[in-house]
Amino acid sequence: MNKASEKNKSGGLRGVEAGSTAICTCGHEGRGLDYRGYSIAELAARGSFAETAHLLLKGELPKESELADFHLRLHSLRGAPAAVCAALENIPAKAHPMDMMRTACSVLGTVEPESENAAERAKGQDALAERLLAFFPGALGYWHRFVCDGKGPESGFISGEKEESVAAQLLRLITGKEPPPEHIRAMDVSLTLYAEHEFNASTFTARVVAATLSDMYSAVCAAIGALRGPLHGGANEAAMALVEQFATPEEARKGVGEMLDRREKIMGFGHAVYTIEDPRNRIIKEIARELSQNHPRGHLFAVSEAVEEMMRERKNLFPNLDFYSAAAYHFMGVPTPLFTPLFVVSRMSGWGAHILEQRTDNKLIRPGARYTGPSSRSFVSISER
Amino acid sequence: MNKASEKNKSGGLRGVEAGSTAICTCGHEGRGLDYRGYSIAELAARGSFAETAHLLLKGELPKESELADFHLRLHSLRGAPAAVCAALENIPAKAHPMDMMRTACSVLGTVEPESENAAERAKGQDALAERLLAFFPGALGYWHRFVCDGKGPESGFISGEKEESVAAQLLRLITGKEPPPEHIRAMDVSLTLYAEHEFNASTFTARVVAATLSDMYSAVCAAIGALRGPLHGGANEAAMALVEQFATPEEARKGVGEMLDRREKIMGFGHAVYTIEDPRNRIIKEIARELSQNHPRGHLFAVSEAVEEMMRERKNLFPNLDFYSAAAYHFMGVPTPLFTPLFVVSRMSGWGAHILEQRTDNKLIRPGARYTGPSSRSFVSISER
Repeated sequence: MNKASEKNKSGGLRGVEAGSTAICTCGHEGRGLDYRGYSIAELAARGSFAETAHLLLKGELPKESELADFHLRLHSLRGAPAAVCAALENIPAKAHPMDMMRTACSVLGTVEPESENAAERAKGQDALAERLLAFFPGALGYWHRFVCDGKGPESGFISGEKEESVAAQLLRLITGKEPPPEHIRAMDVSLTLYAEHEFNASTFTARVVAATLSDMYSAVCAAIGALRGPLHGGANEAAMALVEQFATPEEARKGVGEMLDRREKIMGFGHAVYTIEDPRNRIIKEIARELSQNHPRGHLFAVSEAVEEMMRERKNLFPNLDFYSAAAYHFMGVPTPLFTPLFVVSRMSGWGAHILEQRTDNKLIRPGARYTGPSSRSFVSISER
Repeated sequence: MNKASEKNKSGGLRGVEAGSTAICTCGHEGRGLDYRGYSIAELAARGSFAETAHLLLKGELPKESELADFHLRLHSLRGAPAAVCAALENIPAKAHPMDMMRTACSVLGTVEPESENAAERAKGQDALAERLLAFFPGALGYWHRFVCDGKGPESGFISGEKEESVAAQLLRLITGKEPPPEHIRAMDVSLTLYAEHEFNASTFTARVVAATLSDMYSAVCAAIGALRGPLHGGANEAAMALVEQFATPEEARKGVGEMLDRREKIMGFGHAVYTIEDPRNRIIKEIARELSQNHPRGHLFAVSEAVEEMMRERKNLFPNLDFYSAAAYHFMGVPTPLFTPLFVVSRMSGWGAHILEQRTDNKLIRPGARYTGPSSRSFVSISER
């Protein structure tokens, strides 16, 4: 039995190579994360989310003129047909925002379907990935404003200056006001950190769907559904629910200690792939620290650090990206239920890249199963059961 | 390297055990298919789709009183909230019916969400699987009637006698008239044949989504998206498009021969799991033969047989369930674009069983990948690219 099969003994296909990818490496030496060869630390510190999305979708970082074109294309693709606005307005205000995102994607697919013709599909698929990247911030913003204000933004989906970044667009629509530059930069880095992560559950879902040669909307709807789960994208919301229970670091240490005594699960720690640390944590933690400085609820940073200490002392677990993302988003004024939809906006860049890659050398993904059910038995007519 | 790893060399996780299941065995001795230990031949010949769905969801064939209760529960769960009807009416008439099914499921999830609380979810999940089983025939029928007649059925989703089978409900809504008993029986058998198939791509997709602890609607939306692909559920539509090109068996032999000369793919033949034959084929073929007898387009059966012969002679490939399903559905008066949505109605029973099973002993499904991209490289500022 080789190493991969040995690992898979524990289930969940852990360590089994389900395919190949040129998009990302993750978990090398227990803590590496590279997008197409570039380290996440450099991309976050010196690049932008738009550059990162271009890198993921096109394979290379853009030159200045390419980036300007990319911005203009994304801006021109922000609009939504009336049927999508109507569908968003039809969704109950109390609905889970991820159910809204999944529905928005599904409805757009009924209105602007991908061609069923292979040649036409190949011609249009790069533009469709950009379309979805440009669509989601507006969908999230439109619905959120509709729920908050009783109507969508006056400009509908198409709003903001032509050069406006996705980060600025999101914060403007979510908070309902012009965001400060430090929030825009923080959101932009966060989007870069969440953009891509190899064969994580949602991306793998998207690839399984794409491998049936289904359309891109179906693959993305499926990925949104996977990301929605608390063992995947939902973890940052759970982290927020945890830290906001505590008023002080002392309370946090005591509270988390008691939770651990009761063997309760603390979300936002450890990782299926990283064994030493999540390389994204130190970046988002620094952002959370900076944003906490002049924030009325800035104590949540110290509370988060206390939780981190307890988890290291008691469980020897490190925080993953989700943990300090919670405090960072909170300091930017993002309501907790919108944390995972922001993850959709960002991860669409990675999903798009993986769907396109899956199509280049496709094979149906169809594993086997170990049977544990009843052995062969004879049918008994209903009157004799 | 063990056998599973050896097989996976060819990609697509073929032969790799991605988990365990007590629901189905498929492909044993190259041609077996059992649902919870009962052979598909016996279930199709002596049982009904309702009994099969009960078997899949509850683990056992129902007694008479249990079956009566199951019918009543399914009938009581047929309704749809106004928001779902509005959403269906909002979908373009030209939309792909699978995009409609995916959207119908997604919208229902915004209106009747599954609880996020683990205990409440566990309490309600069996009923939710039945809800979705009962919902889809009405969704398909409502939208189809709305597109055909300019309005939904007067009774909305809730229509038909309390004892009406899903097969009868479907045919009544699709054809707009009371179906003859032989069509109802044929549809019922077809639903049994399509109900379950172990870790096929859509079911595996549903399990990957469920394994993040996401909700059942997300898992089912994802499965619909996977089933939509021509390498999965879309194959019966492709088979129909093929056979209806030919007026006679001779034309069919000639036409298929030319397609094979041009190395074109013929859908509905061979299988990822069966090596000798698809055990469902002889059942659906017999049904297609019977339905062809007095049908004005009954020649399509002889045409289908000619295609089958050519594929055996030239490629040594056997027809799978999808191939004769095409002719059978056609003879029942089902328009081709509704073939795959019927598959959704049926397979919901299997998906539901697998989602419930995945939750009983859950582990996140997160495989690895073989990296083929650029090696580590240094970030270059945009002005220097």
